[in-house]
Amino acid sequence: MIVVMAHKASKIAIDRVLVKLDEAGFNIHLSQGVERTIIGAIGDKTRLNDLALEAMPGVEKVVPILQPYKLVSKAYMEGPTVVKVGNVEIGGDSIQVMAGPCAVESREQLLEAAEIVRRAGATLLRGGAFKPRTSPYSFQGLEQKGLELLAEAREKTGLPIVTEVMDPRNLDMVAEYADMLQIGARNMQNFFLLREVARAGKPVLLKRGASATIEEWLLAAEYILAEGNRDVVLCERGIRTFENYTRNTLDLTAVPVVKYLSHLPVIVDPSHAIGKWRFVEPMARAAIASGADGLLIEVHPHPEEALCDGPQSLTPDNFNNLMHKLKHIAEVMDRKMGSLQ
Amino acid sequence: MIVVMAHKASKIAIDRVLVKLDEAGFNIHLSQGVERTIIGAIGDKTRLNDLALEAMPGVEKVVPILQPYKLVSKAYMEGPTVVKVGNVEIGGDSIQVMAGPCAVESREQLLEAAEIVRRAGATLLRGGAFKPRTSPYSFQGLEQKGLELLAEAREKTGLPIVTEVMDPRNLDMVAEYADMLQIGARNMQNFFLLREVARAGKPVLLKRGASATIEEWLLAAEYILAEGNRDVVLCERGIRTFENYTRNTLDLTAVPVVKYLSHLPVIVDPSHAIGKWRFVEPMARAAIASGADGLLIEVHPHPEEALCDGPQSLTPDNFNNLMHKLKHIAEVMDRKMGSLQ
Amino acid sequence: MIVVMAHKASKIAIDRVLVKLDEAGFNIHLSQGVERTIIGAIGDKTRLNDLALEAMPGVEKVVPILQPYKLVSKAYMEGPTVVKVGNVEIGGDSIQVMAGPCAVESREQLLEAAEIVRRAGATLLRGGAFKPRTSPYSFQGLEQKGLELLAEAREKTGLPIVTEVMDPRNLDMVAEYADMLQIGARNMQNFFLLREVARAGKPVLLKRGASATIEEWLLAAEYILAEGNRDVVLCERGIRTFENYTRNTLDLTAVPVVKYLSHLPVIVDPSHAIGKWRFVEPMARAAIASGADGLLIEVHPHPEEALCDGPQSLTPDNFNNLMHKLKHIAEVMDRKMGSLQ
Amino acid sequence: MIVVMAHKASKIAIDRVLVKLDEAGFNIHLSQGVERTIIGAIGDKTRLNDLALEAMPGVEKVVPILQPYKLVSKAYMEGPTVVKVGNVEIGGDSIQVMAGPCAVESREQLLEAAEIVRRAGATLLRGGAFKPRTSPYSFQGLEQKGLELLAEAREKTGLPIVTEVMDPRNLDMVAEYADMLQIGARNMQNFFLLREVARAGKPVLLKRGASATIEEWLLAAEYILAEGNRDVVLCERGIRTFENYTRNTLDLTAVPVVKYLSHLPVIVDPSHAIGKWRFVEPMARAAIASGADGLLIEVHPHPEEALCDGPQSLTPDNFNNLMHKLKHIAEVMDRKMGSLQ
Repeated sequence: MIVVMAHKASKIAIDRVLVKLDEAGFNIHLSQGVERTIIGAIGDKTRLNDLALEAMPGVEKVVPILQPYKLVSKAYMEGPTVVKVGNVEIGGDSIQVMAGPCAVESREQLLEAAEIVRRAGATLLRGGAFKPRTSPYSFQGLEQKGLELLAEAREKTGLPIVTEVMDPRNLDMVAEYADMLQIGARNMQNFFLLREVARAGKPVLLKRGASATIEEWLLAAEYILAEGNRDVVLCERGIRTFENYTRNTLDLTAVPVVKYLSHLPVIVDPSHAIGKWRFVEPMARAAIASGADGLLIEVHPHPEEALCDGPQSLTPDNFNNLMHKLKHIAEVMDRKMGSLQ
Repeated sequence: MIVVMAHKASKIAIDRVLVKLDEAGFNIHLSQGVERTIIGAIGDKTRLNDLALEAMPGVEKVVPILQPYKLVSKAYMEGPTVVKVGNVEIGGDSIQVMAGPCAVESREQLLEAAEIVRRAGATLLRGGAFKPRTSPYSFQGLEQKGLELLAEAREKTGLPIVTEVMDPRNLDMVAEYADMLQIGARNMQNFFLLREVARAGKPVLLKRGASATIEEWLLAAEYILAEGNRDVVLCERGIRTFENYTRNTLDLTAVPVVKYLSHLPVIVDPSHAIGKWRFVEPMARAAIASGADGLLIEVHPHPEEALCDGPQSLTPDNFNNLMHKLKHIAEVMDRKMGSLQ
Repeated sequence: MIVVMAHKASKIAIDRVLVKLDEAGFNIHLSQGVERTIIGAIGDKTRLNDLALEAMPGVEKVVPILQPYKLVSKAYMEGPTVVKVGNVEIGGDSIQVMAGPCAVESREQLLEAAEIVRRAGATLLRGGAFKPRTSPYSFQGLEQKGLELLAEAREKTGLPIVTEVMDPRNLDMVAEYADMLQIGARNMQNFFLLREVARAGKPVLLKRGASATIEEWLLAAEYILAEGNRDVVLCERGIRTFENYTRNTLDLTAVPVVKYLSHLPVIVDPSHAIGKWRFVEPMARAAIASGADGLLIEVHPHPEEALCDGPQSLTPDNFNNLMHKLKHIAEVMDRKMGSLQ
Repeated sequence: MIVVMAHKASKIAIDRVLVKLDEAGFNIHLSQGVERTIIGAIGDKTRLNDLALEAMPGVEKVVPILQPYKLVSKAYMEGPTVVKVGNVEIGGDSIQVMAGPCAVESREQLLEAAEIVRRAGATLLRGGAFKPRTSPYSFQGLEQKGLELLAEAREKTGLPIVTEVMDPRNLDMVAEYADMLQIGARNMQNFFLLREVARAGKPVLLKRGASATIEEWLLAAEYILAEGNRDVVLCERGIRTFENYTRNTLDLTAVPVVKYLSHLPVIVDPSHAIGKWRFVEPMARAAIASGADGLLIEVHPHPEEALCDGPQSLTPDNFNNLMHKLKHIAEVMDRKMGSLQ
């Protein structure tokens, strides 16, 4: 960490900072330039936030130098981490596609969707039983009934299930049915939920918050790893910007950045990021070309009847075409499409 | 709602939309221009999201016309709503200032802070017992012990207490001590929490999410009102933008906008929005001049020793000066500073 | 266009809007619902901005329905438009890569760079003679001397030249040397410059402004086409968001969106968008996979000696590797890499 | 500046950085920690950008410590700078209000507007003769005729004139009529224009770009001061964010921040920032309460007939009310409203 003192900071102000850093066990390097005094401090970075140095008189700013996370970083473990969900490995040689409807709506809809995505080559089934909705008047999910239907679909297709948990009070119920627990974008900084989900002992799919920096996203993953659960898959799903032709702006550069900073696998959800089915296929291709380990794609047997996110769902035909195209992109990346054994 | 059909949409595509809208009970107006067919539909706006019209072939876009919320709107109730917390009225003639430390750290710190803010004229005491922190290695709050200290501070000063609830499992515990329950910015779209807090029967302070539009913020409030709890105070606390000299960008225009759209009171938290104590006073003045009903201000007896958010906390002296200045601004606005009876 | 009247707007207010629209030659459809009166108007959309309807009493909002641009749209011309620069066709079957240093620094540097990129397969040479720099103390370009060097490099390699024009007063000079005129991101809404450059009769490379929506970008292109110059290539180069690990956020979804809305070619500049060479290769791959017609890539013989944007420039070896990888991605997209005849 | 070397950077990589810094005349401090080597360098900060250190092998990042601007900073001159336009002083004790229509439309409209704003207490007249418009089909201004009308209005009212210059080729013409030259938001980084306008020897009103950080805005001002023109007034006019209820997000905190960092005066333009007249009055009050030196307000005798920005223009009555309210806010701030002698 670097502490930059204000122009003309008094000697006593400088000394008070030095004493505080010293008492906190930091090694100190002092540089007194013509314009400013600058203090370098090397020590336990995780204690930095608790020092409140910027509140001290004469301190202009504190510049952190090292990354604030540890367990998720490449410096801690080279990786890559491979996360196993049922027999499906995420983060290894194979590209895994999680697909299915936004929300579980009915037995018929879910089983039809599951069959469609399995046949097209998806290796995990996604579907929401609890739905976070901006308006209280929108469909909120089938809850336990939805979970039971997901389990039935797994039975019939062999696809492991990924579904969202929104409330720690429902965690046991969701964990009983799901193979992988999803933390939604709105809950990325729901720290109680992060900790509880971590402890459930299942793999976690951690979506990036719509206004979260990559650093904050990795810190949210750090919460999970710090509880002893290393099976975390990150999912880029768009960030909020001024551009409003698409629902959010898919930040695909986050894929190689996460691969550079962390050992965790990262997948991409173009459906939610964009909000319009028409652009899902090109961005799914681009995601794999950028180095992503997989995709989360919304597919609905009849998008125009969907109770949730129909406009961004692919029809069965469009999903088939997408999977076909992805196969070739995967080959260029020296990878192959995943398959259920 | 307006449905804009694509250039050259087929007659059958148009007819399918008309049938769907008709079956859903909408009144329909059809305009066939040279370039586009446009369908106007009047009916129950709350069902719009569930129709998935944008997923239908030939539909280019759906433009909502009316506001998606109801109970929070001026059209539903002229207002202004006055929310009573203990004897303190928020949203009436008086400007109410909630002040105190970011986190409850110790008995000594809290009681000293409470005494300071009461003497300077604050009418509510704020302090966190549960703290949402970006890093798992930062101080996370004293939890129940913190709540007990807040209750003791209320005992000694007469100030009602506002504190954050982050997890529905702690709600009963927090509600036992608090006079007003705060929903933090990170939880603004934690819909389970919104509903549970609404049912606790206490006034709610609803902070705006850092990436929430004003419309989404009002929809979050709608969740609470829809549970029968009308005692909601909105709190603007900055939105996330590209500007990084300040922590967030305080969107003060949201104050008159909320006053125009809704009957609910709105206050401003410049401390969290800005993150630097130096700019809290001018923006607190500006907030009152923009029409806010009150403020949420971080005050710490010794900011440089704070375990949380020291850099943005005012010293007792600075808080005194601020309260003095606010008095005059309030007068210009034909209001007065609130006081405990 | 839809005019939404305020709740309880008076009959006289509604009538005044109707009269104004009628006088302006619009066809009118009136819908009087329980809550609101809504007026649909069909006519010359380009006159809409000049009506100031939102300033009229009783008008709540005006919702435009049709796109505000014309000549750049698919509705005007199906396309795709192919822009020819020298013998190089942009927007056709071949992927074209424009490469070279950020700034022309010296004869030696430029000729070396030109040779490197030509040999690796680039088909256009980029290099700045005039440099827009945030700080007045940074290197601002070699100006005319730089243009002469670019012409010499073209002579030696056969590569057509693309270079930026920043000031209408230099346009004649730049146009004398350049094969394609670049409008930089900061000048995307410099409307005088757009018009002048359009009239120079050379192909134009129009970069997206860092805070421009896709619609505003297309409207900037409309300025050029409206002057009779149809040879416009659009270039996505990142938008400004809260994420600061990368310099800007590359909005790759803009590629398929532009392809859907317009007949113009679109290329991608990952170097400027990201600002770190390490992530240029994966995002260049992703750009082609998303459907882009080409790339703009910064290459420097010795990035660590560059006077401008060294951190984002590829070394000759890295550029070679990139071109190799792109070949395979292009094939998957049923395209081939461009070549000089 | 701090150079952070990558984890496990080689000794030779570190040495190359040290040699480069030494040759560039920097004083060096080396800190070798367990995890990283960190190099502190003190010297001429303005040369930093040209060193391309981040392109060197083994360099992870470069952290600038000092501000990149000089002449605009408080460290260079305590200030406050008072800018004189005719007899009107901006940045002194008095609050100055520049008001008038967005665009000069006709003799009648302008003279009426000028008379209205003068009588209400404005001390400068604003009006555009050249208008930057997003669409090529919108009204683009009366050009020279508009400038002549502005001069006539000054003749009749005594109000000095502020108007925008968009193109260096028109500078002489505009400077012949105007008392103060405005650089619009879209041209804040049109560096050729900045330099030329600086040399015209008239006071400059520099609007903040919609996606410019405060630092970039001050660097744009530095371009003007570096040409020897110190008469610069900064104008906050909203930044682009995801919130779309208002046109832009007025970043009022920029006012006290600029006052802290610079000696230059700063005013606020709520009309353009917000885009809806209804919210102009509360935000004008807030601007003065935040410490602004003045305002730029759009006033039109008949907003519903305006050719440009009618929806955000105040009627004469609303402007009168605003000026009345501001008087009291100014008093609280120990200032008074400006007046023509």
